[in-house]
Amino acid sequence: MSTLKPRLHIDNISPHVRSAQYAVRGELATLSEEYRARLAKGDTDLPFDQVISANIGNPQQLDQKPLTFIRQVLSLVENPKLLDHEDVLLNQLDYKTDVIERAKWLLSKVGSVGAYSASAGVPAIKESIAKFIERRDGFPADPSKIYLSGGASSGVNTLLHVICAGPDTGVLVPIPQYPLYTASLSILNARCVPYNLDEESGWSTDLEIIRASHDKAVAEGTDVRALVIINPGNPTGASLPEDNIRAILAFAAEKNLVVLADEVYQTNVFEGRFHSFKRVLRLLQQENPNKYDHVELASLHSVSKGMIGECGHRGGYFELVGFHPEVEANIYKFVSITLCAPVVGQCVVELMVNPPQPGDPSYEQYNAEYSAIFQGLKERADALHAAFSRMEGVECGPPQGSMYLFPTIRLPPRAAEAAAAEGRSPDEYYCIRLLKATGICVVPGSGFGQKKDTLHFRTTFLAPGTDWVGRIVDFHKKFMDEHR
Amino acid sequence: MSTLKPRLHIDNISPHVRSAQYAVRGELATLSEEYRARLAKGDTDLPFDQVISANIGNPQQLDQKPLTFIRQVLSLVENPKLLDHEDVLLNQLDYKTDVIERAKWLLSKVGSVGAYSASAGVPAIKESIAKFIERRDGFPADPSKIYLSGGASSGVNTLLHVICAGPDTGVLVPIPQYPLYTASLSILNARCVPYNLDEESGWSTDLEIIRASHDKAVAEGTDVRALVIINPGNPTGASLPEDNIRAILAFAAEKNLVVLADEVYQTNVFEGRFHSFKRVLRLLQQENPNKYDHVELASLHSVSKGMIGECGHRGGYFELVGFHPEVEANIYKFVSITLCAPVVGQCVVELMVNPPQPGDPSYEQYNAEYSAIFQGLKERADALHAAFSRMEGVECGPPQGSMYLFPTIRLPPRAAEAAAAEGRSPDEYYCIRLLKATGICVVPGSGFGQKKDTLHFRTTFLAPGTDWVGRIVDFHKKFMDEHR
Repeated sequence: MSTLKPRLHIDNISPHVRSAQYAVRGELATLSEEYRARLAKGDTDLPFDQVISANIGNPQQLDQKPLTFIRQVLSLVENPKLLDHEDVLLNQLDYKTDVIERAKWLLSKVGSVGAYSASAGVPAIKESIAKFIERRDGFPADPSKIYLSGGASSGVNTLLHVICAGPDTGVLVPIPQYPLYTASLSILNARCVPYNLDEESGWSTDLEIIRASHDKAVAEGTDVRALVIINPGNPTGASLPEDNIRAILAFAAEKNLVVLADEVYQTNVFEGRFHSFKRVLRLLQQENPNKYDHVELASLHSVSKGMIGECGHRGGYFELVGFHPEVEANIYKFVSITLCAPVVGQCVVELMVNPPQPGDPSYEQYNAEYSAIFQGLKERADALHAAFSRMEGVECGPPQGSMYLFPTIRLPPRAAEAAAAEGRSPDEYYCIRLLKATGICVVPGSGFGQKKDTLHFRTTFLAPGTDWVGRIVDFHKKFMDEHR
Repeated sequence: MSTLKPRLHIDNISPHVRSAQYAVRGELATLSEEYRARLAKGDTDLPFDQVISANIGNPQQLDQKPLTFIRQVLSLVENPKLLDHEDVLLNQLDYKTDVIERAKWLLSKVGSVGAYSASAGVPAIKESIAKFIERRDGFPADPSKIYLSGGASSGVNTLLHVICAGPDTGVLVPIPQYPLYTASLSILNARCVPYNLDEESGWSTDLEIIRASHDKAVAEGTDVRALVIINPGNPTGASLPEDNIRAILAFAAEKNLVVLADEVYQTNVFEGRFHSFKRVLRLLQQENPNKYDHVELASLHSVSKGMIGECGHRGGYFELVGFHPEVEANIYKFVSITLCAPVVGQCVVELMVNPPQPGDPSYEQYNAEYSAIFQGLKERADALHAAFSRMEGVECGPPQGSMYLFPTIRLPPRAAEAAAAEGRSPDEYYCIRLLKATGICVVPGSGFGQKKDTLHFRTTFLAPGTDWVGRIVDFHKKFMDEHR
């Protein structure tokens, strides 16, 4: 028997991969890359001369400069032979003594960054992370419960692989959400149990909504065993108050749910302060050990966000609290199969959690660069927010945290009709029109999930300047007039 | 309701993760790390003063120095500010002009290595890879069919995720094999269809054995749709002749099987030469297009092995041939969900496929370093092979390729009894005794699969010097005497 067609086709590959959705890098992103390539080749037929990728939290693609301290240390761990020329580094190349010391220390602990590390990460880096968590939370952290990962995405993938046991497993996921969660659950053939965040109260969590979603899923036969929280929020930008976190942990304790706390935006907070799930859990365990000692928490962090913004280095970690040792052994085995997280990315994690301190030679520059990035993000967030508040039919709460705004848009009925004629949802239609008119790429709310009969889009506020904000305002006015 | 136990326990987590096996980093590796930590703390109670990790192909952990050209370029892409001081680089720090040019070129194409790249990798790096494949094979390669990955492991994970559609899906896997394959198939709840390699003929493939395994699985209701080949072999060290590859491709064409060619050891060849599956497929397609044009091939490569040995950077790629565009779209979506491969690792791939050429300022040093590593590996492989040939009950073919020898060991019946008393297989018992006596960590053959009633172990020949080889010989003699 011989057939002349390839074996694999769309109808026989994994149905779970096929059904996964990941809008952040979907059609709009692809189209924006085509435009970028055309502009690079000198194409002048487009109505804009620049593509603004506001669809993805990728700071260094958008002009955010890496922190000098981090990159200097990395240059030395990549080429340790430079350490034979300390005088040149110090006197001619603007390196400081603490940069050299940190590189030597990392090399003494890591060996070569070209070697595989231990599966869960370099032990000394895990110790640095544990000290960081202790300083942040005021409670001890155990390095042996920390796993380095290739960005937080890889950590989420590991945890969901171990947690999901079959098609009945359910995981509570906020709506709107970062679509990594729904995509991973789809690939794992497990159930996403969506719970809506409360837009009216700044996208905070509403325990009654979570409880109703949970109970409905359980009544339908779903084995709901974990709950995802993204704080600060993606795409919402919400920064949860401590009360919200207490309520969620109380619910998790009651229903015996594993809590997955995605805290990659923990330093991107403009309103209030960041409350880690780990700290709040430890407080609750102090107050009421019988009620809280059994709670399992995995909290994730990353070098991709914050003022570090080193996405391309794929560095991150997760910390486990309360997991059974045999479950941990399976997590360890799972991460072993892909050998280890990128070792330079692990070094970036170390540099993130252990930055120069006041008095250190690199501190002043580090602090100046770090603060300027923070201020720039805040200013652009405010400018964008102010622009949205002037736009007809657009509503958006004030920026609280993360790198995103997620405005509601109310579009005229004719826009919905035009979208339907193209087989698109109205928000997708709006975003494609925006891209085609302005070169600005944002992501329609449907890519994250949104409450029925509402429309949104997510935009980062990473792009430099505020000129592009004006282009959104102009486009929006024309769009509304055209579809009125 | 409140329960005081964690939700997850060994009996309710993913049964597929639970059943996965990955011996390369299992009990022996863990024990060897404990010994290493004890030695580092000054423990003198152990009968050895050094742990030799011959269990894992991790060159730079074992004294292999990184190639200067690669690390110099990486230091500049990590800290582009160094490029403001070209005179210092050239005159005081031993950098050459081609290092500086390459770093500038990479930065012009990559932007910041701290930014996410396009999901499938930096376009210009894919073009470099395509040119490398063209030079290697003498046939064109299409950059759009190349996907950068975090080492080859991540590529295998992607491909198997898309290929495996359910519990009936079967994938032909060589025995012995690198356990990534069986572990991944276990996690995906798909079937490993094992086929034995032929130890008598230097671990080559025997088509009749493959056919019998295939037909048996199909008769049992398995949807066998892909075939894995590791060439040069891991753990076997085999280097397949072109005839073997032709026969495999003819069989794949006949049975409509996707071929997964794991070619990460393509430069580690001591005997004969490397024949890529891509080149042989293109030859067959020229000779007989009707018979071969529908064949799907995915070939994988990595920066972790060869003379590069940059495992820690997690760089690799796979090239697709003959895949349906809708299937490719799902592969693209899958890699998008984890955003992109580490960008520095992508740069290492570029440097691997596009090394300095004769006449380039860095060529002489690059070539000297590269050749010395190759020669060192060959010499140690020969020394190890010579030692095995002197050991009672040990048989091992001459080193052909990759980084491993995989000798057969015939142990006395009392060794099997002693193993059984510890609940271990005899090869595992042997390897644990070896580690405890000498500090040398190898992997029992059962970790890779072996033909019934045979025993083996896998050792790398990466560790410097040959003193440790003598320790194996001494241990073996005592072990045999003790269990006679």
